[in-house]
Amino acid sequence: MAMSKRILVRGKAFGDDEGPLVCIPLVGRTADAIRAELESVISAGADLIEWRADFFSEIGDSRAVLGLARELATTASGVPLIFTIRSAAEGGQPIPLTVEQVSRLCADVCSTGSMGLVDTEMSTEPHCIDIVRTAARGSETLLILSFHDFTSTPDTDALFRKFVRAQELGGDVAKVAVMPQTPADVLALLDATLRAHTELDLPLISMSMGPLGVLTRAAGWMFGSSVTFAAGVGRSAPGQLPVADLNKIVGILREALQQVGQ
Amino acid sequence: MAMSKRILVRGKAFGDDEGPLVCIPLVGRTADAIRAELESVISAGADLIEWRADFFSEIGDSRAVLGLARELATTASGVPLIFTIRSAAEGGQPIPLTVEQVSRLCADVCSTGSMGLVDTEMSTEPHCIDIVRTAARGSETLLILSFHDFTSTPDTDALFRKFVRAQELGGDVAKVAVMPQTPADVLALLDATLRAHTELDLPLISMSMGPLGVLTRAAGWMFGSSVTFAAGVGRSAPGQLPVADLNKIVGILREALQQVGQ
Repeated sequence: MAMSKRILVRGKAFGDDEGPLVCIPLVGRTADAIRAELESVISAGADLIEWRADFFSEIGDSRAVLGLARELATTASGVPLIFTIRSAAEGGQPIPLTVEQVSRLCADVCSTGSMGLVDTEMSTEPHCIDIVRTAARGSETLLILSFHDFTSTPDTDALFRKFVRAQELGGDVAKVAVMPQTPADVLALLDATLRAHTELDLPLISMSMGPLGVLTRAAGWMFGSSVTFAAGVGRSAPGQLPVADLNKIVGILREALQQVGQ
Repeated sequence: MAMSKRILVRGKAFGDDEGPLVCIPLVGRTADAIRAELESVISAGADLIEWRADFFSEIGDSRAVLGLARELATTASGVPLIFTIRSAAEGGQPIPLTVEQVSRLCADVCSTGSMGLVDTEMSTEPHCIDIVRTAARGSETLLILSFHDFTSTPDTDALFRKFVRAQELGGDVAKVAVMPQTPADVLALLDATLRAHTELDLPLISMSMGPLGVLTRAAGWMFGSSVTFAAGVGRSAPGQLPVADLNKIVGILREALQQVGQ
């Protein structure tokens, strides 16, 4: 089977050969709600935790964001955090910040050294990506360059080019999340992931969203996706499985894979 | 998602929209071993039971075969049986019968009216397929025309043509089972199944075998495969999951599919 490229995020394997890292999102609106979510997500056994800060009601107050980022990292003690402000255009919450303000906030959060990874959309204006990338490199934060389509799935070649684009733009990780309309779209996503896994140098995160795409959340790692997102207290995107269900499927598939020749 | 064509085998839905039928094989060598397997397989909740008669040590004694076929059908009371003598060339046990003798035995078993389905390889000489098909039609037994490759996976177009060939030869069900060497082979099998499901009129059974192909046994139904084979007391092919594991994965995927919009 395809093997993911292996990189480490603060000592934690990212792109393990034997299964995906399970990332659980924090989608609370208040600091207290997010703190409570974090406790729950850690006890659920998350390998990675994504703070979807576009859900945070104080996103416009950079001091509040930086303070909470530091606090979450301390509480998570060793479980790497991904800092993400998803744009409304790619499925996030509406927030009162410009694209440039978002990039500067991401850069400031990187500079706290509290985050393992930071997510920026590859469609962001190049000079804004530069702002985040520079701060990420300066703080040993890994840069995820992402693409989302919540209504449809581009064809296999177009999906593959999204992964390529993330590498060209200097991403450390490429992420592609798209909505299937048909089972063929699900296969296109897996196909493009496998091709990128074979041809590119960076680790990948990919998924088909919604009910039809659930299979890719459970088995995308067999085709080169290093990380899968599971539902925590809430879901950050449609189709995320409860972490217990996800672990059951991954466990059965992994055990079967180890029984070579059976 | 793709929907399987719905046909009935003695009142049991074949090609259910909401999940695969689970078929468990009988691979005993003696009549007593096969009887014991049958009890176990029924209590495991098989939807279909395949008697792999090439494993039966008395396969050369047609009276013993016909008698046991009738007895198994009575014991299975309502769970349809598939009668299969898999050739050594396609992964079966070596037996002391010619291809023509195999076809005549299959025809005689059909004529007992004890089997819901009979499996014949599409590579069998045309006049031998005719013998089985005529007997199957005369006894309301459904004819599965099958193709197996235990070493490799033909490309997507070649796989699709196997399904087409089964329809052209007058099969009621087309079965394709192949061995993947890479994750791309697994996607090719699913892709060809989906295409056949869209373009052809008959129900399909397909799988990638071995550890790499396990995913297709658990999720092939999402791409148009009506039946999946699970391990019973023994396995009849590599990669078959224990029925409890298979049911767990199918249950989780099915539940997720029903939560449209989640």
